[in-house]
Amino acid sequence: DKIAELHPADLADIICEMDRSQSDEFLDKLDAKQIADTLEEVEPDLQASLVESMPDEKIAEVLEEMSPDEAADLLAELPEERSEELLDLMEEEEAENVRKLLEYPEDSAGGIMTTEFVTVTPDLTAEQTIAMLREKIEEDEIVFYVYVVDSENHLIGVFSLSDLIKARPDALVSEFMDQRVVSVDLYDTQDYVAQLISKYNLLAIPVIDDQQRLHGIVTIDDALDKIIPTAWKKRLPRFYH
Amino acid sequence: DKIAELHPADLADIICEMDRSQSDEFLDKLDAKQIADTLEEVEPDLQASLVESMPDEKIAEVLEEMSPDEAADLLAELPEERSEELLDLMEEEEAENVRKLLEYPEDSAGGIMTTEFVTVTPDLTAEQTIAMLREKIEEDEIVFYVYVVDSENHLIGVFSLSDLIKARPDALVSEFMDQRVVSVDLYDTQDYVAQLISKYNLLAIPVIDDQQRLHGIVTIDDALDKIIPTAWKKRLPRFYH
Repeated sequence: DKIAELHPADLADIICEMDRSQSDEFLDKLDAKQIADTLEEVEPDLQASLVESMPDEKIAEVLEEMSPDEAADLLAELPEERSEELLDLMEEEEAENVRKLLEYPEDSAGGIMTTEFVTVTPDLTAEQTIAMLREKIEEDEIVFYVYVVDSENHLIGVFSLSDLIKARPDALVSEFMDQRVVSVDLYDTQDYVAQLISKYNLLAIPVIDDQQRLHGIVTIDDALDKIIPTAWKKRLPRFYH
Repeated sequence: DKIAELHPADLADIICEMDRSQSDEFLDKLDAKQIADTLEEVEPDLQASLVESMPDEKIAEVLEEMSPDEAADLLAELPEERSEELLDLMEEEEAENVRKLLEYPEDSAGGIMTTEFVTVTPDLTAEQTIAMLREKIEEDEIVFYVYVVDSENHLIGVFSLSDLIKARPDALVSEFMDQRVVSVDLYDTQDYVAQLISKYNLLAIPVIDDQQRLHGIVTIDDALDKIIPTAWKKRLPRFYH
């Protein structure tokens, strides 16, 4: 299957050149994962018009394959009634994640964060952490940072995969994590989030509540989305979380 | 020492607010590594004016601590004679790397690439690769991709640290690497490099010659540098390589 070998960015290019009946026919040949990957390469308004004539069951499957923040963005473009129907068709846990994201103001850190991120506790060794991440990281997922939380989900540290690999196998997370985590509040504005990400050269920033509990992360592409002029947006890579 | 605890981005902010005599005095208190980290947060023309009154031996130390592409950018801002003197003061190997970079046209992939990247051969296991990277990755270095080369330095694959950690410990690099590496030629334009990086959502792209031999990588910040309007440049993170 030649289509399966194409990069989602190339699939998106092809689909954008088609008229509606052609693109409907084309998308019909792809599975939910391929459609999700391809949709993540186009803007939410175009996503919405591309899925318009798809059966609800298929859209629900596609939404499940998208990252929660992307799924929320797409649902926000659809009429509220249909958006509710689609959420009801999705698996309970994934729908719950997306519903939570839809509750935060559109321009807030909570509104642009994703709930897909990896956490560990500080008492693991580097070797145990690698073994655990091997199980936890999903296929296609690119992890930049691992967040360290205590038993009550309070954010207490962060490290990169480079830090993890550099650590001695028997070193504890608490020894090699960075305790000075730059974070934002759920209700901070997108502008402020983008400023911090840029200033400290981050690929993602954690989002916490007033109790220091970790709720999500904002990745650089979503943070810069409204900051960079529209004409340049399309030139910014869309990272996996 | 409170200064040592500050993020280089904060140090750069402080220095930019100072007049020349103040900043000279301030930089005098920092070691070569701290100066290098701080300079990497400001534009090359400002870097050049900040080091102007430093003794040559100190500048040479700072240049050694900078990534080779950053060092080349700074040297290109200085009068050629001084730039040559500084290169002569640097350690042979580091100076050689920077000299090579200065030979490529300013706007070419070769002119904006860095020679700091990590390679492995395809016959290692994931476990052996992790052990090897533990030795190879320098402190402070953030690695996004590891490039796979044969014995003659031909580029034959790529994987991310996420891919590496997800792989079974006994899986060979040749099994989990991606053979479809998107790369550019030494003499491709910066515009073309930026287009490919954006289209395929890459954090870095390898630079090869017409024999498919790997010479360097261009990271996203350097690729987008001229593409994004100047006013927005400062908002884009500067990644470590």
